[in-house]
Amino acid sequence: MRNTEDAPAARRGRRPGQTATRQRILESARELFAAVGYDQTSIRGVAEKASVDPALVMHYFGSKDGLFEAAIDWPFDMDDAVRHVFEGDPATMGERLVRMVCERWEDETTRHPLTVILRNAVQREEAATLMTEFVERQIVGQLVKRSKDPTAALRGSLAHSVILGLVMVRYLERLEPLASASIDEVVRAAGPTVQRYLAVEGESSFSNSG
Amino acid sequence: MRNTEDAPAARRGRRPGQTATRQRILESARELFAAVGYDQTSIRGVAEKASVDPALVMHYFGSKDGLFEAAIDWPFDMDDAVRHVFEGDPATMGERLVRMVCERWEDETTRHPLTVILRNAVQREEAATLMTEFVERQIVGQLVKRSKDPTAALRGSLAHSVILGLVMVRYLERLEPLASASIDEVVRAAGPTVQRYLAVEGESSFSNSG
Repeated sequence: MRNTEDAPAARRGRRPGQTATRQRILESARELFAAVGYDQTSIRGVAEKASVDPALVMHYFGSKDGLFEAAIDWPFDMDDAVRHVFEGDPATMGERLVRMVCERWEDETTRHPLTVILRNAVQREEAATLMTEFVERQIVGQLVKRSKDPTAALRGSLAHSVILGLVMVRYLERLEPLASASIDEVVRAAGPTVQRYLAVEGESSFSNSG
Repeated sequence: MRNTEDAPAARRGRRPGQTATRQRILESARELFAAVGYDQTSIRGVAEKASVDPALVMHYFGSKDGLFEAAIDWPFDMDDAVRHVFEGDPATMGERLVRMVCERWEDETTRHPLTVILRNAVQREEAATLMTEFVERQIVGQLVKRSKDPTAALRGSLAHSVILGLVMVRYLERLEPLASASIDEVVRAAGPTVQRYLAVEGESSFSNSG
């Protein structure tokens, strides 16, 4: 969704006026997202609050998700990353999702910003909800797009809860032995768990289990 | 571990002097747990800080876990609850654990205190770590006690992370569709996930999966 050719244009050699406008849009977005939540926030509403044209918001951020990522300083293109997980061999989606999450949390350039976001989030309930809704929306969105199964949304929600728990225990609280396990061990252990939730109908043991 | 015949003696018709002593012990315990963590806190250390005999701490609280539960106002006997999960049919341990957690979070008498504990915990990092370590210790403890498999601790840690993620999404942030699913749906969906981590060697697909 987010146009990576367009959006970071503002980051390359932007003029002072552009920077100020971009900042004003981001501040308006932060205020609106925090006040009324993601669903109730619109590109038009943010543009109005920042006294700019909605087209300019789209030019800078490409989409509402792109605007949200910029507003919370999310350090990578989530739509790209999650789409990559869902493309390719459907039998190993779970492993790819767990590996992507671990790699982002262990990469020098993304680890610190992600830690800051999660710390801030767990300290303020609205921020936590916004952040986890954002992650859940990405996973559920891809699942629902690819599956007509009526349980797709619930399965996406559960897959997200597994990832959230993993990140909390391994990266925020660093409880052993999960904190010191290698990425490969975590992928081997948690991959099939997530896979069970992500697998499209027919390939999932979700409905007939228990 | 915690002697339920003995421990709540202090709750039944206790005299004012007893209440004050019990409170002093609890305050000392809270300070020590927060300052040095669970592992470094001893019954002897708490007794010393509260200027009482260690035997009195044991009399009131039965064990270090009992003391910890009282210190954070944990609203049910965790050792009992978790042991119940691990006793009985090994094939349905995962379902029993998920059901127990959901039932405690939806029971009128335990829901509110649990919410208070989790809210406090997510707001202060040491409190979060103490609380999640406590839950993890219960699950890992039961697993390690019953299994010689070298992956038992990691599996327990992962099972705990699944439960933590579930509780955060369903009860703290109340994200849909997980928030409105029935307990039976959640048990059917998440039970086998947790089961995969809890199953003793031979019954687990943990080692040879991926």
